[in-house]
Amino acid sequence: MEVLVLGAAGMVGRKLVERLAAEGNLGGRQITRAILHDVVEPPVPQNAPFAATQVTSDFSAPGDAEKLVASRPDVIFHLAAIVSGEAEADFDKGMRINLDGTRLLFDAVRVIDGYCPRLVFTSSIAVFGAPFPDAIGDEFFLTPLTSYGTQKAIGELLLSDYTRRGFLDGVGIRLPTICVRPGKPNKAASGFFSGIIREPLNGQEAILPVPEDVRHTHASPKSAVGFLIHAATIEGARLGPRRNLTMPGVSVTVAEQIDALRRIAGDRVVARIRREPDETIMRIVEGWPQRFDARRARELGFRAEESFDEIIRIHIDDELGGTFAS
Amino acid sequence: MEVLVLGAAGMVGRKLVERLAAEGNLGGRQITRAILHDVVEPPVPQNAPFAATQVTSDFSAPGDAEKLVASRPDVIFHLAAIVSGEAEADFDKGMRINLDGTRLLFDAVRVIDGYCPRLVFTSSIAVFGAPFPDAIGDEFFLTPLTSYGTQKAIGELLLSDYTRRGFLDGVGIRLPTICVRPGKPNKAASGFFSGIIREPLNGQEAILPVPEDVRHTHASPKSAVGFLIHAATIEGARLGPRRNLTMPGVSVTVAEQIDALRRIAGDRVVARIRREPDETIMRIVEGWPQRFDARRARELGFRAEESFDEIIRIHIDDELGGTFAS
Repeated sequence: MEVLVLGAAGMVGRKLVERLAAEGNLGGRQITRAILHDVVEPPVPQNAPFAATQVTSDFSAPGDAEKLVASRPDVIFHLAAIVSGEAEADFDKGMRINLDGTRLLFDAVRVIDGYCPRLVFTSSIAVFGAPFPDAIGDEFFLTPLTSYGTQKAIGELLLSDYTRRGFLDGVGIRLPTICVRPGKPNKAASGFFSGIIREPLNGQEAILPVPEDVRHTHASPKSAVGFLIHAATIEGARLGPRRNLTMPGVSVTVAEQIDALRRIAGDRVVARIRREPDETIMRIVEGWPQRFDARRARELGFRAEESFDEIIRIHIDDELGGTFAS
Repeated sequence: MEVLVLGAAGMVGRKLVERLAAEGNLGGRQITRAILHDVVEPPVPQNAPFAATQVTSDFSAPGDAEKLVASRPDVIFHLAAIVSGEAEADFDKGMRINLDGTRLLFDAVRVIDGYCPRLVFTSSIAVFGAPFPDAIGDEFFLTPLTSYGTQKAIGELLLSDYTRRGFLDGVGIRLPTICVRPGKPNKAASGFFSGIIREPLNGQEAILPVPEDVRHTHASPKSAVGFLIHAATIEGARLGPRRNLTMPGVSVTVAEQIDALRRIAGDRVVARIRREPDETIMRIVEGWPQRFDARRARELGFRAEESFDEIIRIHIDDELGGTFAS
């Protein structure tokens, strides 16, 4: 089988491709070729057991999406997106990539006669907008408060309609915050959720800009990849016409994150977290959902971690070779 | 003030323009000019107290929307749409008019510096898809099961985001089924809801293709115009960021519709309804919402009829000059 990954140079995209290369198959079917696409050159895992084709382009350019699907890949992972902050700062760019690009991809698939690939679309919990109930259920409505969330919600609607009409076989997954994100600190407002774990384990100071009672839902990068694989292989009929699913995650307060870090790494590591309240970040975080009741996804077999301890251990195992700076 | 009406040749559009002409003002501000747009020439009411400009064009053609808003109308009523059946039969046409056309209109407004008109967008209960709760509340999610419903749901999302960003001042209203529709019987699956009232009152036989326990929500054409006027004049701050509202209506079974007709027009009129079950129409109607809890709209002052009797009387008064074929 052939697989196409859009957004293959991103953090989740790279980890997805690494796992596909390690397993060599998807749902029991051998992967013979992978097309890896991004706006910058995506890495190809060493010793991948399939032919890998790197494509570097802007998939919202006319004709680009058609080229990407011309070989009729069996599964398409659409992870390409302009992230929240940039889509807010540059409205036209966000609309062009997140909305027009997605539609161009869907239409490129649609116009090929007799072609109906599984298309996994990564949506986001940014499709939800405050005020929220205590836990956001599977039938809560989408009232995004960012242009990014709006564009993702539109992608979900298109995915459902294109699936209903038989143009493609879509599954949309709303990812929670991915934690612990590997790599350097970034300027995303949500960055501290990972930072307060990652930096202390690395012997460095981390800034905590919000009170410890802030609650948020997390899943590890490993779970995110697991969601994608499961979405690629699940039987479509089990989903019915409602093709977009909120993924499960671990809902914890910042205090509970820190407690987990203490249990795993001790007081010396926790002491590297420095409180430095930031009004701007606090205000942004207040508008975010805190907790989901992701019943449908769980019933359909999507699995996240059971505890934040587990999320930390995955980070130590997968990114730090099993050790940390105690 | 200046008003622009897109879809001014449609049934609701014509009635809206007639009311604007009869009142001469909108929210107490005198209307000095009305731009009436449609794909066929829209009628201009006789003795309209304002200058009326008729524009006949395809508003999804490049540059067309810019021309329509160039004079910076204070209020824009966007009623133009490809209806449900046609958007399902001709996917490209539905996407072009209902999605691209709407976006082109919003963008034409957006790019004019310092211009932020009230834009009233007519959405539809087709944004909802089965299965439904007993009554659909204001926070029920949008899972349309038609391309028309999908395009309207996307229009709602764009309206909210463009409003949030200050590009325009949008209010979206989801109209229930309009009943009694004047004019000739049409082939819409929902046509019988009006037909079983309109034809008997006109001395003609009407076909009832579904069982009498079918429940549906209705509002008169007069209420639809009332919703539009209220949406054009309501204070935006009262809506907050959630700019799309399910309109109220009268939820009745077909049996209750017929009982109301009997009370108003007698047994001889009711006897003109002929039962002729139609499996296809039954299956379509089963997928439609039956009842709404339109609390937000009611609290914001949107008013529908209190009973189906009232809906029939409005039809007799407004369309039949107060009499009917007894």
